[in-house]
Amino acid sequence: MTSNAYKQSYGERAKRHSNPAAKQLLETMERKKTNLCVSVDTVMASDFLAIIDAIGPYTCLVKTHIDILEDFEYSIIERLEALAKKHDFLIFEDRKFADIGNTVALQYSAGVHKIAKWSHITNAHPVPGPSIVRGLASVGLPLQRGLLLLAEMSTAGTLAKDTYTEEAVAGQGSDEDFLILTPGVGLEEKGDGMGQQYRTPHEVVLDSGCDVIIVGRGIYGKNLADVDAIAARAERYMTEGWAAYLKRISS
Amino acid sequence: MTSNAYKQSYGERAKRHSNPAAKQLLETMERKKTNLCVSVDTVMASDFLAIIDAIGPYTCLVKTHIDILEDFEYSIIERLEALAKKHDFLIFEDRKFADIGNTVALQYSAGVHKIAKWSHITNAHPVPGPSIVRGLASVGLPLQRGLLLLAEMSTAGTLAKDTYTEEAVAGQGSDEDFLILTPGVGLEEKGDGMGQQYRTPHEVVLDSGCDVIIVGRGIYGKNLADVDAIAARAERYMTEGWAAYLKRISS
Repeated sequence: MTSNAYKQSYGERAKRHSNPAAKQLLETMERKKTNLCVSVDTVMASDFLAIIDAIGPYTCLVKTHIDILEDFEYSIIERLEALAKKHDFLIFEDRKFADIGNTVALQYSAGVHKIAKWSHITNAHPVPGPSIVRGLASVGLPLQRGLLLLAEMSTAGTLAKDTYTEEAVAGQGSDEDFLILTPGVGLEEKGDGMGQQYRTPHEVVLDSGCDVIIVGRGIYGKNLADVDAIAARAERYMTEGWAAYLKRISS
Repeated sequence: MTSNAYKQSYGERAKRHSNPAAKQLLETMERKKTNLCVSVDTVMASDFLAIIDAIGPYTCLVKTHIDILEDFEYSIIERLEALAKKHDFLIFEDRKFADIGNTVALQYSAGVHKIAKWSHITNAHPVPGPSIVRGLASVGLPLQRGLLLLAEMSTAGTLAKDTYTEEAVAGQGSDEDFLILTPGVGLEEKGDGMGQQYRTPHEVVLDSGCDVIIVGRGIYGKNLADVDAIAARAERYMTEGWAAYLKRISS
């Protein structure tokens, strides 16, 4: 993100943004007063949909790993889209595409999941070189989709650093308004024992210029059936994330 | 691969290899006299299965992108496994896992595709750091699966180079016998216009110490229904790949 964007409101940035998916997301954030993205990593569709219905009011974006749903069938997408409409959020399939152009174009458009058809935003590792962006753009641009490139990761020992990170962002216009989405956000936990490291909403929004905080297990927790507690935690993260944002733009 | 392995026969290496999937693959290569892996990237299951049945006799390994099959249902896996038994080859789902440990463990084991259940070998980008290997190992080791790490890629402008490549292989025992599988192998084409670059079997086996050549579009071509021509091309690549290997071990 440029230093310009750091101090601007989401609404102002929405007006000037050239990418339709980014524009729509910024507008949603401004309208709903939330910069919270909830990551819903459950393997049963019933939990998946119930949790999304519970956290929907507090989120601008729902992040999915559609390929972990054991009982996936395409009707689940239709129900997800109905929830997105009901609660006014966008969908982000966290696919982390990482193959050559020809392959990612097929993975994005085809198969049983048909990600490009319903996911407003997806992401990719820049490791294969520029062809991955060309391959995904051939599918996503006509549908006005957004693509996030992973220039860094929140895990211990990541190789996405130094020259990798520099090359990942090189060639992008320096005055462009990049939206920064940050996973690994938590209020209490320090890590998951599998390499994930957590930082607070305040740290990522103020110190790192993050625009959208991504929270997963910190919200849905271990008891997936307790949707009231899940909704309450989502509301708490929404409040914390928005307070950090207000502090940033008024600082 | 160590310089030791470069001159040794697949059969000798199979005897000493500690990884069950690598051992099984090396044994298959020696037994069938082929170091050809065929990549079958079709979106309809009928083409997918017919092509695999046609190239089965010439291949040690079939490489899949199971997530591009439009009409996937789990019975296709059962038919794939029956073909693997009939023709004596192993299966390699080219998933290119690239997420944090907790997520890849779910993506590998769960969802509709259940990759760990049927794919002898899969692969991952080391970009998230060591947690990705721990996450995949938690699922794959009990099933005696093999994991390939992508230290380099065959696309133009890849970021998998220099310190990235060095760090990807650092910490692995230098006397370990790594199997090297090389995609982007072609006899005629130079590239696909989407960043893929081709090298000949001779170049990759002799010059780069590759053990298994991976050929996709060079074998299945554009007319997916012409299985006789597809089988003939597979036989030609098998012959070329094996000749390069014999030249290498007798050089």
